[in-house]
Amino acid sequence: MIGIGIDLGGTSIKSALVDSKKGILKQFSVPTEANKGKDFLLNRLIEVVEHAKKEAPEAPVGVGIGAPGIISLDRKTVSNPPNLLGWDVVPLADVIEKGTRLPCRVENDANLAALGSARFGAGKDYEHFVMVTLGTGVGGGIIFNKNLFRGATGGAGELGHVMIDYNGPQSNSPTQGGIEAYIGQRFLSRYAADRLRQNTSNELFLRFKDHLEDLEPVDLFNAAKEGNAVAKDILRWAGEKLGFAIVNYVHTLDIRTIVVSGGVSRAGDFILAPAREAALSRMMDPFKKGFDILFETLGNDIALLGAGSLAMEISK
Amino acid sequence: MIGIGIDLGGTSIKSALVDSKKGILKQFSVPTEANKGKDFLLNRLIEVVEHAKKEAPEAPVGVGIGAPGIISLDRKTVSNPPNLLGWDVVPLADVIEKGTRLPCRVENDANLAALGSARFGAGKDYEHFVMVTLGTGVGGGIIFNKNLFRGATGGAGELGHVMIDYNGPQSNSPTQGGIEAYIGQRFLSRYAADRLRQNTSNELFLRFKDHLEDLEPVDLFNAAKEGNAVAKDILRWAGEKLGFAIVNYVHTLDIRTIVVSGGVSRAGDFILAPAREAALSRMMDPFKKGFDILFETLGNDIALLGAGSLAMEISK
Repeated sequence: MIGIGIDLGGTSIKSALVDSKKGILKQFSVPTEANKGKDFLLNRLIEVVEHAKKEAPEAPVGVGIGAPGIISLDRKTVSNPPNLLGWDVVPLADVIEKGTRLPCRVENDANLAALGSARFGAGKDYEHFVMVTLGTGVGGGIIFNKNLFRGATGGAGELGHVMIDYNGPQSNSPTQGGIEAYIGQRFLSRYAADRLRQNTSNELFLRFKDHLEDLEPVDLFNAAKEGNAVAKDILRWAGEKLGFAIVNYVHTLDIRTIVVSGGVSRAGDFILAPAREAALSRMMDPFKKGFDILFETLGNDIALLGAGSLAMEISK
Repeated sequence: MIGIGIDLGGTSIKSALVDSKKGILKQFSVPTEANKGKDFLLNRLIEVVEHAKKEAPEAPVGVGIGAPGIISLDRKTVSNPPNLLGWDVVPLADVIEKGTRLPCRVENDANLAALGSARFGAGKDYEHFVMVTLGTGVGGGIIFNKNLFRGATGGAGELGHVMIDYNGPQSNSPTQGGIEAYIGQRFLSRYAADRLRQNTSNELFLRFKDHLEDLEPVDLFNAAKEGNAVAKDILRWAGEKLGFAIVNYVHTLDIRTIVVSGGVSRAGDFILAPAREAALSRMMDPFKKGFDILFETLGNDIALLGAGSLAMEISK
């Protein structure tokens, strides 16, 4: 079975033919050009589907779209997506269904990452797990009994905004001390710059001293790999915050497998080892059995794999 | 339909005949006498069931037991209950089934409070809600699609140990800054005593000054009702902490109805109003729609109603 998976981003529309057994068969990308307005973009999405259809070795069964904004419980409507000009409330699935004659559903990125991991990735062998996506923002998706747990309105898993310190810093929400405000890419970079300013003899400071604002998490990972103690310590700090948040997920859900994906997760054990340690230090004993934090190895493909999986599961 | 509900406590065994429509028909209580050992107590539980059977207007369909300790996913086994001498791992449901010829299941107190509220109480009209029990400890139960969400092993909803401050105080778990450590009866009493020591002209201090360790939350509620500003402020402090924790539940689960029960909840709006305010101040906008914190009015009956409901739902 083949599903068409689409990742609707602010700069590009990525799409893929996803085979239920083989995963991604082919991948495509076109610029979003959101500045050309809503109708232009909806037409472009229809073209993207039509193009994928033509490239498919057999007829695709449906279309799954990962979109920004708030997704309705029936997975048909997108509300207030940031970065998409003129989109207020858009019945995206209906528009695509009408334009392509294929069933379509929409879902948010973190939920699709969870679904992709459940079908093709690190989460494949688990009945239940929590996906935490560490990127520009920090998102979450909850897999329970092999399927997404979506809550009352489809909004479950805002795990970047689960607080670990009610007096803590803020990211782009009113929630103080959510882990997005510690470990979201921008916040981690800013914290790293602050720490390096206090370590002016550190090699990483010397390399970036004239443009500390350009320092990115990947620079930290590379420095940590080379043995840079300050970089390691910054990542340990970030991992510890992640570990605390994970305790909250585990105590609420009694789901003990955590899968971490997204750019910042590439720090691997520089972040995940302190996360495990911090989580275990604060976790109630009965929850420790079977607890683990895994790294999603499928990288960026996970979103398209999730969107393709959604496409194949519409009729379920 | 009638189920037998049992609340196995450290000092007394409460039991009730619960009618699916009318609620509690009759209630009974015998001392637990846990010091007499496991076999004595198991026999006593069988006697309790037999007694309830005889008092029932029609044959009960099963037995539901609220027990301390860790309950297995199949709701048959109790592990390591505090306060019950000689109980390590006990196949409680099997023992009761064998001794009474009625199907039996066991569940933890907070989950039964949630189930009782879902079938008979404040949660009755909601598809989804989160029950928070504010007593000696702080517990939680999650109702999703009218049924308990129990997680991977039956342990979901340890909501008193969801942290709001990773540097915060500890209750009886390794989790720092869980709300049990703020608003659990003992901790709230201790905080109140500390605050009163700094307000030596306050009427409540003057009343308790020689035995501040005897001050209980109920004394705070009564003083608050009489307009005592310090008592009100202490309850506002407690309510705020509860509100922060509720944001974590809502952002994780996307369940927007919170039902609060247990002794400390009798403070009513002295705690619930600041909880609502604190929660809304930290909640992401999309979750505010339909958000509310309700007070469970059924009081102590809720546990027996939940146990009776469990009894009636065994075959489901």
